[in-house]
Amino acid sequence: MNTVEVIKKKREKEELSLEEIKYMIDGFTKRKIPEYQFSSFLMATFLNGMTTEETAALTHTMLYSGKVLNLSQIKGAKIDKHSTGGVGDKTSLILAPIVAAAGVNVPMISGRGLGHTGGTLDKLEAIKGFRTDLNLTQYKNVLKKCGAVLIGQTSSIAPADKLIYSLRDVTGTVESIPLITGSIMSKKLAEGIDGLVLDVKTGSGAFMKQTRDAKKLAHSLVNTAKAFDKKVLAMITDMNQPLGNYIGNWLEVYESIKILQGEVVDDLCTVTYNLSGAMIFLGGKASSIKEGIEISKKMISSGKAFDKFIEIVKLQKGDVSLIKNPTKYPKSKFSEKIYATKNGYLKSVDSYQLGMASLELGAGRTVITDVIEPKAGIIFYPKIGDKIKKGDLIAELFSDKKAKMKTSIERMKNVFTLSNKKISKPKLIKEVIE
Amino acid sequence: MNTVEVIKKKREKEELSLEEIKYMIDGFTKRKIPEYQFSSFLMATFLNGMTTEETAALTHTMLYSGKVLNLSQIKGAKIDKHSTGGVGDKTSLILAPIVAAAGVNVPMISGRGLGHTGGTLDKLEAIKGFRTDLNLTQYKNVLKKCGAVLIGQTSSIAPADKLIYSLRDVTGTVESIPLITGSIMSKKLAEGIDGLVLDVKTGSGAFMKQTRDAKKLAHSLVNTAKAFDKKVLAMITDMNQPLGNYIGNWLEVYESIKILQGEVVDDLCTVTYNLSGAMIFLGGKASSIKEGIEISKKMISSGKAFDKFIEIVKLQKGDVSLIKNPTKYPKSKFSEKIYATKNGYLKSVDSYQLGMASLELGAGRTVITDVIEPKAGIIFYPKIGDKIKKGDLIAELFSDKKAKMKTSIERMKNVFTLSNKKISKPKLIKEVIE
Repeated sequence: MNTVEVIKKKREKEELSLEEIKYMIDGFTKRKIPEYQFSSFLMATFLNGMTTEETAALTHTMLYSGKVLNLSQIKGAKIDKHSTGGVGDKTSLILAPIVAAAGVNVPMISGRGLGHTGGTLDKLEAIKGFRTDLNLTQYKNVLKKCGAVLIGQTSSIAPADKLIYSLRDVTGTVESIPLITGSIMSKKLAEGIDGLVLDVKTGSGAFMKQTRDAKKLAHSLVNTAKAFDKKVLAMITDMNQPLGNYIGNWLEVYESIKILQGEVVDDLCTVTYNLSGAMIFLGGKASSIKEGIEISKKMISSGKAFDKFIEIVKLQKGDVSLIKNPTKYPKSKFSEKIYATKNGYLKSVDSYQLGMASLELGAGRTVITDVIEPKAGIIFYPKIGDKIKKGDLIAELFSDKKAKMKTSIERMKNVFTLSNKKISKPKLIKEVIE
Repeated sequence: MNTVEVIKKKREKEELSLEEIKYMIDGFTKRKIPEYQFSSFLMATFLNGMTTEETAALTHTMLYSGKVLNLSQIKGAKIDKHSTGGVGDKTSLILAPIVAAAGVNVPMISGRGLGHTGGTLDKLEAIKGFRTDLNLTQYKNVLKKCGAVLIGQTSSIAPADKLIYSLRDVTGTVESIPLITGSIMSKKLAEGIDGLVLDVKTGSGAFMKQTRDAKKLAHSLVNTAKAFDKKVLAMITDMNQPLGNYIGNWLEVYESIKILQGEVVDDLCTVTYNLSGAMIFLGGKASSIKEGIEISKKMISSGKAFDKFIEIVKLQKGDVSLIKNPTKYPKSKFSEKIYATKNGYLKSVDSYQLGMASLELGAGRTVITDVIEPKAGIIFYPKIGDKIKKGDLIAELFSDKKAKMKTSIERMKNVFTLSNKKISKPKLIKEVIE
């Protein structure tokens, strides 16, 4: 096979065969095809797209660039969830224990946060002692014991993705539906799952700002999962404001504990229950998403989900005392309150800026080597549509860095807008794609 | 400026500024922008194109990556011709002396042959002693003395082009109208010309197989030349069969000498006179192309063009005795004649295969380091539309390599097709674009 001929074929929008895609991906990851040829191929793929078959072939090749786990020794369905990322999105922490308590295994391999959205791993590591770096044998053991496990990406899982992503990042080829699909699905399929629920977010705080693009990505992900005979379902969910009120690593663990203990936060509970309900449904423990949602609520009210969370934390070596008494967690050195300066209805939230303010306070990373301060973050109280009175508490900021507190307060001034007119609340679950 | 942002802008089909294009080209040629980013930019440019302004900016940056000659000391107009290349295209050898004899300067910097088309330099070097490697001072001196000069590309002329072309060649980004335009025009504008006649070929032996694509390229070249205030004119000419009958380096010099001495070869003379006529017109020595054609014919019939050719060869240190007595040129060790095996009308010629057969015999290069055998080549006698009788001489092959002779004879079998029906002759000058 000839590299330039394959590039030209993609350039001319002809469909590539599995062999041709394999030739390109393997050639690049084994350093037989130089970066300058692969980046030309990436741009041609970005601009001309890929068919469902090509995307499946891409995913297949990336998947088998590494280890593919076999979880067949573990009884019961294995269902994971993947979110495209949002501000304050802590659903994984809540739904993993819910779904495991309902008898469906949740084998979850997650990423770290970069930029304005946080990562599940960073949140978990805010729990003192919590080990996200289990090896694959330990991963299987925890899953077998308690029905859920949450660890970080290992180098043996889909190594092609890391190499390809590094090149996409510097060649203007990140925002491509087939390339995103290959990246997400190769890592998820490597977990050894039977099914997957996808949370594709759309709005100001999401990777996909437009619902149109979110739907395209959802369809691509669903089609690819089906090509691998996986049970799959995608939800397009709103990310025009943070999910729940807490943003920042420990703050999000804290809010998750409250939810697991029965507290109700409307938007966060709705999205979490829909996702967990779908997982329980795909796992065969409910006959519909609706029934799955009812089961989820029961897992909370019975205390089973919270007990499961304690069990997971214990098995992954986390300090359970902080989960039981979360108010004992150390406090940030500095905190500031932000109040409304006029009356109105909350019209919009710039979730991207909110995420960046939280990052600045110490909760996130600009580059992958940045060190996270687990206590740092923001509590943002109002929701779009809420009536606000002058003097109402809007947000609380937490940080150990005084200087950063100042710039974050500045940033917060432009984060939300009020309107004189009544504003309707955004629909949380915009569409379910099966 | 940020490289990824510029790539993304081109990716989104936004128009780039001169500064952005300069940033990319200079960055790449000065090795500040790595190949993998530049190749992604090249593919985005290939697929999204460039506006006239962007193409002019690209040409400007490539042009000023090197030396731009100033020929203002030399009196009279300086008009060059550029051809996109074809099989048997020896018009430069004939028109340079015609146009110079008519009082218009022809400062010509040419390339070498690669693949199925020959290069003017290789043809000139078939003349024993002929120096194509004059430095720029010698180049000016010859031009000043006789009104024409034909040399090879020097490293000081548009060095960006060589670097960019090398990357285009291996990243599937060669056949791009704006990138081709930048490549051709940066080198031509560096010559210090006042005007340029473009011979954009179309057909089986041309780079642009489709007339539609040839026209697009012609318009892009013409628009770019105008952006630099140059007189310009493009002709779309037929390349569905070789131009003239002789293919191969010395063989083409030989046919050129015959034309300069007054012999008439219909297609070759028509194309050459149109191009030389246009050059004389742009150079201000005729009031129309038509008048330029009449002057061209007079330059031949009066012997002035042939005398000028002798003068050029002498000034560039070539062996004039061979020009005066071309039959004394050494002969190839092997030759073969190919005859028609049935009656019919010549319907089509696969000029690409004919060019490749000639290359195989020793007349061309597959890679730039191949050594050329100047005597090697093919005489192909019939023209499309000609009535052929069984036993008619179709072609003669010349080579020093017996083994290659065999494979070329095989190749020749598929080079032409006959028809029972009458076939009309193709139009030679398809369009003039001003």
